[in-house]
Amino acid sequence: MSKKDIGIVGLGVMGENLALNFSNHGYSVAGTDLDAGKRNRFAERTSGKNAAVHPDLASFCGDLSAPKKILMMVPAGKAVDQLIDQLKPLLKPGDVLIDGGNSLFLDTERRIRSLEGTGILYIGTGVSGGEEGALKGPSIMPGGNPDAWPVVKPLFQAIAAKTPDGTPCCEWIGSGGAGHFVKMVHNGIEYGDMQMIGESFALLETLLGMTTEEMASVFDEWNRGDLNSYLIEITGRILKKKDTETGKPMVHVILDAAGQKGTGKWTSQTALDLGAPAQTIAEAVFARCLSALKEERVAASGILAGPSRPFSGDRAAFVGAVREALYASKICSYAQGFQLLRSADEEYKWRLNFGAIALLWRAGCIIRAQFLDKIKEAFDAEPGLKNLLLAPYFRSVLAGCQDSWRAVVSEAAMTGIPVPTFSSALAYYDGYRSAVLPANLLQAQRDFFGAHTYERTDRPRGRFFHTEWT
Amino acid sequence: MSKKDIGIVGLGVMGENLALNFSNHGYSVAGTDLDAGKRNRFAERTSGKNAAVHPDLASFCGDLSAPKKILMMVPAGKAVDQLIDQLKPLLKPGDVLIDGGNSLFLDTERRIRSLEGTGILYIGTGVSGGEEGALKGPSIMPGGNPDAWPVVKPLFQAIAAKTPDGTPCCEWIGSGGAGHFVKMVHNGIEYGDMQMIGESFALLETLLGMTTEEMASVFDEWNRGDLNSYLIEITGRILKKKDTETGKPMVHVILDAAGQKGTGKWTSQTALDLGAPAQTIAEAVFARCLSALKEERVAASGILAGPSRPFSGDRAAFVGAVREALYASKICSYAQGFQLLRSADEEYKWRLNFGAIALLWRAGCIIRAQFLDKIKEAFDAEPGLKNLLLAPYFRSVLAGCQDSWRAVVSEAAMTGIPVPTFSSALAYYDGYRSAVLPANLLQAQRDFFGAHTYERTDRPRGRFFHTEWT
Repeated sequence: MSKKDIGIVGLGVMGENLALNFSNHGYSVAGTDLDAGKRNRFAERTSGKNAAVHPDLASFCGDLSAPKKILMMVPAGKAVDQLIDQLKPLLKPGDVLIDGGNSLFLDTERRIRSLEGTGILYIGTGVSGGEEGALKGPSIMPGGNPDAWPVVKPLFQAIAAKTPDGTPCCEWIGSGGAGHFVKMVHNGIEYGDMQMIGESFALLETLLGMTTEEMASVFDEWNRGDLNSYLIEITGRILKKKDTETGKPMVHVILDAAGQKGTGKWTSQTALDLGAPAQTIAEAVFARCLSALKEERVAASGILAGPSRPFSGDRAAFVGAVREALYASKICSYAQGFQLLRSADEEYKWRLNFGAIALLWRAGCIIRAQFLDKIKEAFDAEPGLKNLLLAPYFRSVLAGCQDSWRAVVSEAAMTGIPVPTFSSALAYYDGYRSAVLPANLLQAQRDFFGAHTYERTDRPRGRFFHTEWT
Repeated sequence: MSKKDIGIVGLGVMGENLALNFSNHGYSVAGTDLDAGKRNRFAERTSGKNAAVHPDLASFCGDLSAPKKILMMVPAGKAVDQLIDQLKPLLKPGDVLIDGGNSLFLDTERRIRSLEGTGILYIGTGVSGGEEGALKGPSIMPGGNPDAWPVVKPLFQAIAAKTPDGTPCCEWIGSGGAGHFVKMVHNGIEYGDMQMIGESFALLETLLGMTTEEMASVFDEWNRGDLNSYLIEITGRILKKKDTETGKPMVHVILDAAGQKGTGKWTSQTALDLGAPAQTIAEAVFARCLSALKEERVAASGILAGPSRPFSGDRAAFVGAVREALYASKICSYAQGFQLLRSADEEYKWRLNFGAIALLWRAGCIIRAQFLDKIKEAFDAEPGLKNLLLAPYFRSVLAGCQDSWRAVVSEAAMTGIPVPTFSSALAYYDGYRSAVLPANLLQAQRDFFGAHTYERTDRPRGRFFHTEWT
């Protein structure tokens, strides 16, 4: 049997599905995993295909055609470093080593540096779309050593999702950790999207008392408009699903304590490091932290007072207003995500193509949505666009949505429904369009107690003054 | 001349003022700095006192009585590591080395580990109060090697601020990086306080059109009630100050682009690492990031639409409502800070005394405020208190303030004034008192696209289920 086109280390569902995807596109695949159970399942699922499974890395590497192309699908962290150490002696200059997990971009940068001089071409790539996407076409965000890209480009673009016009959702992002950075921001935006859908759901259910069936219809309808996206689609499907055991709606038997695996947290922490305002994404991460305190919340619900004001407006109009609040908040969250990409691009000199990144997320990945076309158009029209909010389409949507958005945030405050991302996004919008913010008072305070100095409104930037306040 | 009681490396204003403070309390002081100008100024300011200045570390260390007590007042980061390396050969077992800068607590933990086996007793301590506090009595938060505490306790407690009943605002915090951790959280809370005062100021100035003199009176009045605190006091004083050059109010000539030095950022990042909800503090940090984009905001202010609704309510009542919104938001921010301390305590096993920490902040430091007595009382009454919001005093204040608080957040949303921390704090309050949050839908989504599994409401925690959704 001839040697294989690509090898995959780590045969969890993601690795296995990517292998089947490669195989379905005519590529031969070698797989390996420490776990014999996973190796056996892989053998079963690839039987009859041009695929082989190996019990160890040496025989696995021996089965790969030159230059070897190895995709690591192992958990982010130490496992990746250990695997690189084990593979290094088995690789030759020109071989391509790819990390397809959710590694922190700084780890990817470090690994690239540590392989300098070996001739091994390293790629850190985001792969989004969950298990189904891995099989049917994920969004792929590769970055690292640019010499590696021509070697793997045909394989990656073959298995990637395609936009409605057939463009593969896989393009070279940039050097170093650029690919993993872009995937991290994708996930941060995903945290925001999910929390915002949750806030809409809470308003419909708690404030309007809608049933899951009624809410499912609302989300189905929203999915036919501007909000058309994978997450809105599955929300409608989830709300229709009944628990087989109790007959209750599934959402009512699922515990409201959210888990997380780190990429939303990294997005927020990285934004803080770069000084990029990404508060709405951070609120979404903190909302998961708060949800995890289930027992504390249940206890507090019997102790802390809330308002007794019931909803008193027009129900149908309010549903429409929630849709507009959701769309406006979502635009702000994406604006923050792209602002973060721009800050990182300035810091790391990746020369990111923001329009191309929007297109990568157009299909295959979890945040896939029609409105990413609008983001691509905005950056195509003005590649140096400072903030998405300023693009004509988004500016006009926000102008049209804002009355509803403000009314929803106000109603939530008055009735006691927590909408941390809706209100954070609104404060971001109002802050960004404020020529003057109260930071003048804040700078005065800092100069008062710490002699931190300040700039003056009537002098050029970069000149610092101090007042003797006392 | 006899050897000195304490030595200070780094004669910036903070180091120099601490030296004078020690001297004013009867301790002899040696100082050193690389900068001859600073050494000369130190010599001038300490002339006639029992103090000496040294041109190098060797003669400086030779002038200290045994066991040597050395306070490093140099910028956080590499400078501390370099100084430790230079001092190490000059020190003996039992000598005490103290880092009084704003070091990241993880660096302090690392430095303590690196000195293991040398016998050098290391302390990382927070020192708050700015330049004036350093001279007249700062709040001091020492942690590290517990054997060091008895050696420096009399000196530190002598120069520390005192609470109204005479208790020194300096007590041992705990082992490792506990002291710097508590100082970091102090600073994170300070970021929140300052941003909240800024939001109050923006509402009074932008919405009500009050003059700086009118606002100064408001803050002076607030300072006589529950909000009594250093930051409210200096806000009143700042608002009265006129620019000598233009005659305009100082706040109107100061540029609204806030700086930051890292501790607020670290607080937010650490909260994310520990999964502790500290969203309001994070919003305050992000508000500074947004303020720094001055040129972008000025450009956006001419492009992005806002509401045209003017303020239409009762002005005097609204001022009162802003006061209540500020107090309620402040309580939530402190609740988050103490929740973060509790999370860290569980992680690092410091056995923090939360009531004692509140007392440390009662005087001397930037966030000093009357209401810290209430926090101390709350933890004294119930040391295992899960959240400050649940303590009788705070619960009742929040119940009383919440109508006004909700009205202010609502009015700000409707009129386009950004109040990111007021609204984040309200969402935190409403989230914490929610027995059920929309995280059930979120967990369903995660299970749908990523097979992340979920817990059930009708089963014990810790058992995980997966649904075949499609």
